[in-house]
Order: sequence, then C-alpha cells, then structure tokens
Amino acid sequence: MTAESSNPGGSLLLAWQLKNKHVLIIGGGEVASGRIESVLIANARITIICPSQGLHSITKRFINGSHPITYHDRVFDGAEDLDDVDMVLTAIDDVAQSRIIYSLCRDLKIPVNVADIPDSCDFYFGSQIRDGPLQIMISTNGQSPKLANIIKKKIQKSLPNRAGEAIRKVGDLRSKLKDRAPGVGGEVSKRRMKWMVDVCTSWEMDDLALLNEETIKRLLDDGWETNSVPPPDDVVGRRNRTFDAAPTSIHVFPCMVAFIAGAACAGVLLFSRHR
Amino acid sequence: MTAESSNPGGSLLLAWQLKNKHVLIIGGGEVASGRIESVLIANARITIICPSQGLHSITKRFINGSHPITYHDRVFDGAEDLDDVDMVLTAIDDVAQSRIIYSLCRDLKIPVNVADIPDSCDFYFGSQIRDGPLQIMISTNGQSPKLANIIKKKIQKSLPNRAGEAIRKVGDLRSKLKDRAPGVGGEVSKRRMKWMVDVCTSWEMDDLALLNEETIKRLLDDGWETNSVPPPDDVVGRRNRTFDAAPTSIHVFPCMVAFIAGAACAGVLLFSRHR
Repeated sequence: MTAESSNPGGSLLLAWQLKNKHVLIIGGGEVASGRIESVLIANARITIICPSQGLHSITKRFINGSHPITYHDRVFDGAEDLDDVDMVLTAIDDVAQSRIIYSLCRDLKIPVNVADIPDSCDFYFGSQIRDGPLQIMISTNGQSPKLANIIKKKIQKSLPNRAGEAIRKVGDLRSKLKDRAPGVGGEVSKRRMKWMVDVCTSWEMDDLALLNEETIKRLLDDGWETNSVPPPDDVVGRRNRTFDAAPTSIHVFPCMVAFIAGAACAGVLLFSRHR
Repeated sequence: MTAESSNPGGSLLLAWQLKNKHVLIIGGGEVASGRIESVLIANARITIICPSQGLHSITKRFINGSHPITYHDRVFDGAEDLDDVDMVLTAIDDVAQSRIIYSLCRDLKIPVNVADIPDSCDFYFGSQIRDGPLQIMISTNGQSPKLANIIKKKIQKSLPNRAGEAIRKVGDLRSKLKDRAPGVGGEVSKRRMKWMVDVCTSWEMDDLALLNEETIKRLLDDGWETNSVPPPDDVVGRRNRTFDAAPTSIHVFPCMVAFIAGAACAGVLLFSRHR
C-alpha cells in the first residue's frame, strides 16, 4: 500500500515496559552485563543465574551494588527457574542448553532473547542512545551491527543540545497543565494538546531545558491563560545564544576567517602592485 | 553503577520479531491503520476485528490489498478471539472494553498494547524512521510525543545518504563472506568480524551503497584474500564526491562567498583610498 508496507522484512520496534516486572538473566559474562544495565534502566527486578567463576567484573559490581538483583551461584536448573518470570535473557556459551531454555520459554509464553542465536529470539537488541527520558534505538535488522554503531555516533552528534533535559521539562509542563486544566477527551484535551505543540515548535530545546517550577508557572499564567506562547526571553530570560548555537557558530567562524583571508589577500595583491 | 543504571525510569527498547506470528488488531480507525502498517513491515499475519462503519480509508485499503490480513466485520467477542494470537493491539474508543481485553491478554500471557491507556500496555510505540533494513525508534517515555517528532526530523536530516542501501549491501557482503570462509566461533569468525569492521570504517556509506554482486566478488578477491581493504575507487569506481559530500559543501560554499566578499571589500577600500 505505502512505501513501507511494500518493503517488509523488518522488526516491530517497541518500548517494552518492565516496571515491577521480573527478568531472569542466565549467564553473567560481558554480554549479560550489558543486558543487566538495559534492564535496570527499565526498573525491573532481576534474577541472575550463573556460576560465580563466570561472572564479568561489571556483573559482579551490579550484584554487589544496591540494585533489585537476586543472584544464584549455579547453572540453570530447569522449568522451576522460570516460575513468576516475565522475560528471559540468556547469554551463555552452551548452545544446546540455550535451545532448551528457549523451548521452555516458548511453552510458558515468556518472551526470550538467546544471545547469538537469532532464530531463538522473540526480540533483538539494537544500538541504543539514552539522554534522560529520551531513548533512541538503531536497528539494522541484523545486517550490520558496525554500521548501526557508526549511525548511532552520527545521531549522537546531531541531537539538539540538552534534548533529554528539554523533554523532561516539557513532561513537567504538560503535567502541571493537566492539573490546571483537567479532563480527558473533548475540547479541553484538544486545546491542551494544541498549546503544548505550539510551545514545543516555537521554543528551542535549549530554552525548554531552562524551565523550572517558577518559570513553568509563569509560562502557564502568561501563555496558557491568554492562549498564546510568550517568547522564551520573557519567561526563562535571555540565553547566551551565540554560545549555545553551536551549529551556527560552526558556520560563522570559518566564514569570518575566509572573509579576513580574502581581504588580506586582496590587500597584499593590490599593495604589491601599487609599489 | 554507571550513569545509565543510576538514572532509571526508562523502557527496554526492542526489535520484536513477528515473522510468521499472528497479530490481532481490535479497531480499524486512524490509530489502528498506523498499527497495521508497522505490523505488516514485520511480516506478521494480521486479524482485524472492527465493524465496517468504523474503518478508516487507509485500513480499508490494507484490507482490500494483497496483504496477509483476515478481516471480521464485528466487535470483539471475548477470549475465543484470542486463540492462537501472539500479540494484541487495540485502538477502540470503549475504555471499559479495552480494559477487559487487556485483562484477558494478561491472563493468557499475550503481549498487548491498548492505545491511549498507558497502564494497560506491555509496550509502547515511538516515533519511527525506516530506510530499508535500517529502523530507528525515538521514545521520550511518554513525556513529549511532539519533541520525539522534532528529534525524529533532525535525525532524518542527519542520516548519511543512502544509509539503508549501504546496510543492505554490507549484509550481502557479510553473507557472501560467510559462504567463502564458513565456520562459527574461533579464528575464522574473529578474522571475518575484524575485516567487516575494517571495510565499514574505511569506506563511506555512499561507497558501500554502490556495491553489487560483481563488485562484492572483487572486494572479496582483492581485499579478504589479501587481508586488506582496497580503496572504494579501485572496487566500485570513482564517485562524484563533491556532489555527494553535502555536509562539506554546505561549509565550503559560504566560505568561498565570504573570501570573495572579503577580497572585494578590501579591493574597493584600497582602490577608493588610492584615488
């Protein structure tokens, strides 16, 4: 129908919710330590099963830290280890054992990822960027992890300054606005949504990131109540825009140098001819 | 432990695999039509349940197109509609009914997303970019869909030219290399991985995108066999790099103008003084 749907072979990218969920991680090596970090970000409870001699130093630090982690110093023991588990991530070298775990998970309908065995995975991981509430995943659908990484670095460079902070503050603003003008659906919902879009499109991320409790109140008083969006200078004060506006200064500086160089060259040329 | 793990409250971003899986979509409006498209990309079989008067024109086109879609012109009928279903996405206006569907899915351990009711979701969707095998998701963890959209547009602009095509060709190269030097684990695996990384880091995406069956063979013959990475000009031919290198030309052009302007100003100044 559309360009996308006639070009299948992709994944369904999702932001999986793990708050108060229980994740079993089988293995404790380097790959497992990366999984632990990803899962902790998502506020899950974790059980790690791995003989202590197989633990990577980062995994050890996670186990010894103040995280919601239960650790068992042994190998996987069968279906009873899957009781009350919402997700399973395995990262062990034993391919036969990995396949047994996958098959048990399938029977119990527990989502599972078996590291390095793509056909035993309900889902894959991708290259990820995180900046506070902002999370970005880059997947090449298994075609090239290296290019995913190169693209990740390019995206990191292109992200607006303080994007994560701006998103957090806009979240605060939205929640304060809902307190002030409550209601689900209908006109108030539409007006709220439109005003939030107006704020997000007319302020730069750097300005949004400067919001605080006091200036959020000012923005709602001066903006929402009069159905307008005041300029950021009137609410959060004047930023040193030349300092913040890196993408512009990158262009301006070489142009200034080129201008001076052009003037100097012409000067030298005319001066030498004149003599 | 690390910056990330001490900053929780996020999601676990995943690339969910739906090939040969069965997705039930309840509802047929605008939101549902977006879900259908996302799910078709991931090669799922789809069942849509929605009274025909509630179908959006895009949903109708999907149903009437040549997609693996079964359509039922009725409302959701209870647990029997969930037989043999691997994922459920609902997008209906009836909040009470949505909550019933969520609860049934939970009991049957079927992953479920209920549009607009965040606490009845195992997972959320985010702003997405797709370019062939490249898929990118931007999530603000519900804080600001509008900023997610603004960031998505910035990322789209920053993506290397023909990134998707480059990824596809690198996938082809990797699979041809595996045919030539097969084996899992051990030295050959490591050498393959290292050589692929060398190719991806020393060639630009535009060059990788030019690969085809013939030049992949040449790259393997001249590169892999001699444990080197030949320059792209020797394999895929010379590109018109000044044309492709947009980010550079953006900088160079204003600098040239500034240089000429500087020269002109100096010329005029000196000339007028001289007279």
